[in-house]
Amino acid sequence: MEEKVISIDKATLELLEKAKNDGVETAWDRKAALKVPCGFGAAGVCCRNCAMGPCRVSPVPGKGVSRGICGATADVIVSRNFARMVAAGTAAHSDHGRSIALSLYHTREDGDIKVKDEEKLKRVAERFNVETEGRDKYDIAHDVAKEGLNDYGRQLDEVNLPPSVPEKRKELWKKLGIFPRAVDREIAAVMHSTHMGCNADAESMIKMSMRCSLTDGWLGSYMGTEFSDIMYGTPHSADTEANLGVLEKNSVNVVLHGHEPILSEMIVQAASDPELIELAKSVGADGINLCGMCCTGNEVSMRHGIKLAGNFMQQELAVVTGAVDALIVDVQCIMPALAKLSESYHTKFITTSPKAHIKGSTYIELDEENLLNSAKSILKEAILNFKNRDQSKVMIPELKSKAIVGYSVEEILNKLDKVVNSEIGPMQTVKPLADVIVSGVLRGAAAVVGCNNPKTTQDYSHVETIKGLIANDVIVVVTGCAAQAAAKHGLLQKEAVKYAGPGLATVCKLVDIPPVLHMGSCVDISRILDLVGRVANHLGVDMSDLPVAGIAPEWMSEKAVAIGTYVVTSGIDVWLGIVPPVTGGPEVVDILTNKMDDWVGAKFFIETDPKKAVEQIVNRMNEKRKKIGI
Amino acid sequence: MEEKVISIDKATLELLEKAKNDGVETAWDRKAALKVPCGFGAAGVCCRNCAMGPCRVSPVPGKGVSRGICGATADVIVSRNFARMVAAGTAAHSDHGRSIALSLYHTREDGDIKVKDEEKLKRVAERFNVETEGRDKYDIAHDVAKEGLNDYGRQLDEVNLPPSVPEKRKELWKKLGIFPRAVDREIAAVMHSTHMGCNADAESMIKMSMRCSLTDGWLGSYMGTEFSDIMYGTPHSADTEANLGVLEKNSVNVVLHGHEPILSEMIVQAASDPELIELAKSVGADGINLCGMCCTGNEVSMRHGIKLAGNFMQQELAVVTGAVDALIVDVQCIMPALAKLSESYHTKFITTSPKAHIKGSTYIELDEENLLNSAKSILKEAILNFKNRDQSKVMIPELKSKAIVGYSVEEILNKLDKVVNSEIGPMQTVKPLADVIVSGVLRGAAAVVGCNNPKTTQDYSHVETIKGLIANDVIVVVTGCAAQAAAKHGLLQKEAVKYAGPGLATVCKLVDIPPVLHMGSCVDISRILDLVGRVANHLGVDMSDLPVAGIAPEWMSEKAVAIGTYVVTSGIDVWLGIVPPVTGGPEVVDILTNKMDDWVGAKFFIETDPKKAVEQIVNRMNEKRKKIGI
Repeated sequence: MEEKVISIDKATLELLEKAKNDGVETAWDRKAALKVPCGFGAAGVCCRNCAMGPCRVSPVPGKGVSRGICGATADVIVSRNFARMVAAGTAAHSDHGRSIALSLYHTREDGDIKVKDEEKLKRVAERFNVETEGRDKYDIAHDVAKEGLNDYGRQLDEVNLPPSVPEKRKELWKKLGIFPRAVDREIAAVMHSTHMGCNADAESMIKMSMRCSLTDGWLGSYMGTEFSDIMYGTPHSADTEANLGVLEKNSVNVVLHGHEPILSEMIVQAASDPELIELAKSVGADGINLCGMCCTGNEVSMRHGIKLAGNFMQQELAVVTGAVDALIVDVQCIMPALAKLSESYHTKFITTSPKAHIKGSTYIELDEENLLNSAKSILKEAILNFKNRDQSKVMIPELKSKAIVGYSVEEILNKLDKVVNSEIGPMQTVKPLADVIVSGVLRGAAAVVGCNNPKTTQDYSHVETIKGLIANDVIVVVTGCAAQAAAKHGLLQKEAVKYAGPGLATVCKLVDIPPVLHMGSCVDISRILDLVGRVANHLGVDMSDLPVAGIAPEWMSEKAVAIGTYVVTSGIDVWLGIVPPVTGGPEVVDILTNKMDDWVGAKFFIETDPKKAVEQIVNRMNEKRKKIGI
Repeated sequence: MEEKVISIDKATLELLEKAKNDGVETAWDRKAALKVPCGFGAAGVCCRNCAMGPCRVSPVPGKGVSRGICGATADVIVSRNFARMVAAGTAAHSDHGRSIALSLYHTREDGDIKVKDEEKLKRVAERFNVETEGRDKYDIAHDVAKEGLNDYGRQLDEVNLPPSVPEKRKELWKKLGIFPRAVDREIAAVMHSTHMGCNADAESMIKMSMRCSLTDGWLGSYMGTEFSDIMYGTPHSADTEANLGVLEKNSVNVVLHGHEPILSEMIVQAASDPELIELAKSVGADGINLCGMCCTGNEVSMRHGIKLAGNFMQQELAVVTGAVDALIVDVQCIMPALAKLSESYHTKFITTSPKAHIKGSTYIELDEENLLNSAKSILKEAILNFKNRDQSKVMIPELKSKAIVGYSVEEILNKLDKVVNSEIGPMQTVKPLADVIVSGVLRGAAAVVGCNNPKTTQDYSHVETIKGLIANDVIVVVTGCAAQAAAKHGLLQKEAVKYAGPGLATVCKLVDIPPVLHMGSCVDISRILDLVGRVANHLGVDMSDLPVAGIAPEWMSEKAVAIGTYVVTSGIDVWLGIVPPVTGGPEVVDILTNKMDDWVGAKFFIETDPKKAVEQIVNRMNEKRKKIGI
């Protein structure tokens, strides 16, 4: 592999060079060592769902063995594997959401987690039909949490979908038999139907996946975001910086990595403790420098302006700087390689979640009964490790970019309110946004989301896609590792308006926003669903009628598959920049990239070239605009 | 492959010959066509949990690539794959149990499903703390169903474990951190923790699998059995016959195949409808001949003495007889190959469950609102298809064996009561069973369970294991396809006492039972747990103290992995006759076959030779007897 294709991020390239000199391996090295991935697995035609096999059927129709021992065809195998990816992704996001709901259930006035945004609590209470009038906010919070938790486990009655789901969409889901039941039930249902000797029909298997995925987007992730906002505050725009250059030479550098904000919020709180700051100074540091990575980075950045150290493929490189005193993690997207890697440096690799033990790490469980104190203990470990830093091994890249983060739906509407309704006070309406889309000032809106994947040049597809879209007057919102790519490459600054087309540029200047809005972590894609649903409701159309798109240029996780599926099922086209393991199933490919459009008015596009993807998106938006006559 | 190793069942061999002559393929042919299975998959070291890969690490420690792109080691990959098998198996059984619970919730006096065993209902109500005094049985049933359903979805408070779980065992589970939460939650938890970048520690991953599996054995499957008994009756011993020879030359042959008794019970009911019998006669048949296959076969056989057409590897051969007018299925273990195969014969292959659509089948959904009528419609299809039977293609093997089925725990205790307490009336106590074990008349008790697997000679391992055990005075209970193997080979007859050792023979004669007791379907392994738990409670010991064992000589499904795991976690040793895909993870192998014994007092033994397995079981039972001084 030529070095130039590894990344467009200079900090990444610099640190890969250092890793090489230090004699440590990274994911790119391991990828190279593994050589060509298994063709059966890559095509999705490998089945390990029973012990008669494993079976691998031919990924090429008409050539080779066409059925597994039970008689499963390539399409059956591919569709079941796809469904299990969706189930796993849904489980990941939703289990995160569950922890947040359980935290909300345990909030109390004298507890470590409080209700911070009472206004949002009341709005959310309303949609769950929880009485708010004259009640203590904690009583309300506990009832809201209980109602939310019910939608994870209810076996009877319908789940509470948010009001932003258009009625037409709900009817469509009912008609298709994919109206979701409880979150956990849909996960179990997929796991059952993918079991040996159950579903053997690609269409119904994909429909079950779609139903399951909806519990991710509109329930698990949605509650994850809503309830986090209630407890930790609804994000407002704030300045921050991004890339590994945010590490500081003479501070205790703590990198928070993972997903659930419970841990990171407590660490943020602990980091302002005067005793700990004093301790940091007593060990010779200037202070404590908290930085975030991956989705945890997005969470704390959105709410506290905490700096973004980088995205998925940089987690190992943070350790390679030699300047990270502790890498504190909870769940998801944490490379197990960090355990071995941190042995080569002084970094303390601290795991905290019973959901994600990692062998070789220092495990300090975040004690639910004593959150802040355990966060302080964890942080203390980091501070005390400062003295072990080997200055000869330290190399902090110079690179960091300024960025504005924190565009929750509420914040976007605030910004719009300020422009159009400044004289009559806040209205929190999507009207101005809908207006600029309908009028054609904006061609449409797109969400660029998802991971990094060493199959492609790090950040390249993210950046190219975003630049291409904003040049075409498509306003872009970003979450996850795509958001960090955008931040690192200067796209979350108001100055990025220079890349925008004339319509978008006008809007940005008028509203005083960058052309690319940071909307948070991967579960916060629920914010995007909410916004699109509101615009659809405002215009009296379905979500599939709007010129909007979702793009995951560099995705790698099963969560991304779940996200892609709920986004499409919600009526929004999705472009995947990495080929999913479905190519061995021609019927599945046809369903995903064609038939789904008939079912739900949106479909998957698989396009590894971001420039081509942009072209396709613009065309598809133009078509959608034409169709509804705007 | 030499023919002699395919099966020890002559009916199977005869029909395979016919299949060859008819030019149709079976699972054995497809296995041969697939040649050697993938070594990475077979060793468990293939990871498809994210799209950076797929990755396949070396199954041999110290040789080749030892880590996936994320850094996951062989043990991490193997343990996650194992956990997902457990999650899928748990989902399958439990989703079956859920359907049963939902049916119980909808029972009503004038409905198609009624409360049949009110006494059992009251016993079950008691353990759920549902008031029974002076209440209508349907009100009780609905409350019991609701409580049961809560244990699928509850997010707060403990689940209701049956009273047969010894207190010591519950304490042990709590100490190990594996006390189960709700069924669906544990499935979601495993799916989350096996996601990319979560758990990377084989020990905690296996412990999570153990916790998940407990919800299968003690909740999902357990309720599946209990609630089925309430609605469809608790089984009592009854005579039946087994093997494909039960098909009749001049009757409408209907084979019921799958798992959930909801469908099959309705078909049984429909089959006694005078109009349908008349219809059968009007098309020239003598009548309707219902037969069962796999677990559905066990369910209807246990409750109605319906004949057993055969086990898993015979499902295609039923069609090959040319004499099956309809093969009616619901969920699990149904080979998708049946769709194509039935095109070569006149057999109508009718799928009925939205959980398991099969392409190419005739789909007639069992309408929940109108169960009996839809069962009648389905049966009518079978009857009307009789005329399409091509006599020139018919070959019904002569072979069938007599068998006694129907040994629920209640029935076993009834039988014992009759012997020891005949003068004081029924006591429903396990005392006599415990006594004969303690005294050494019986060395112990073993459950031989599970599937067929073309990796080994059909039925051979089942039969050899059973014969070896009973010769050593180990009383054997059977479920699933193992039960059908036993039935087909004459082991469920009282005459089989000739194979029994002297102690067991004495007990069999005294109690008037065969040495091998048919306890039902795979979910009915919960009956076995119940029985073992009761004996442990009676003796004031833990389940792991007893000389009992579980053996799955020819397993193939993920359900079997879930079962094996909950059986071991409950304190009962498990022998697997097919090597599970874990051999690439030395730490996982050590946990399963060694460490688990320290944790829960039982472990997995992997032994493909049934004779050696019997030796090991006898030795281990002797050890356990010695340990508790009996």
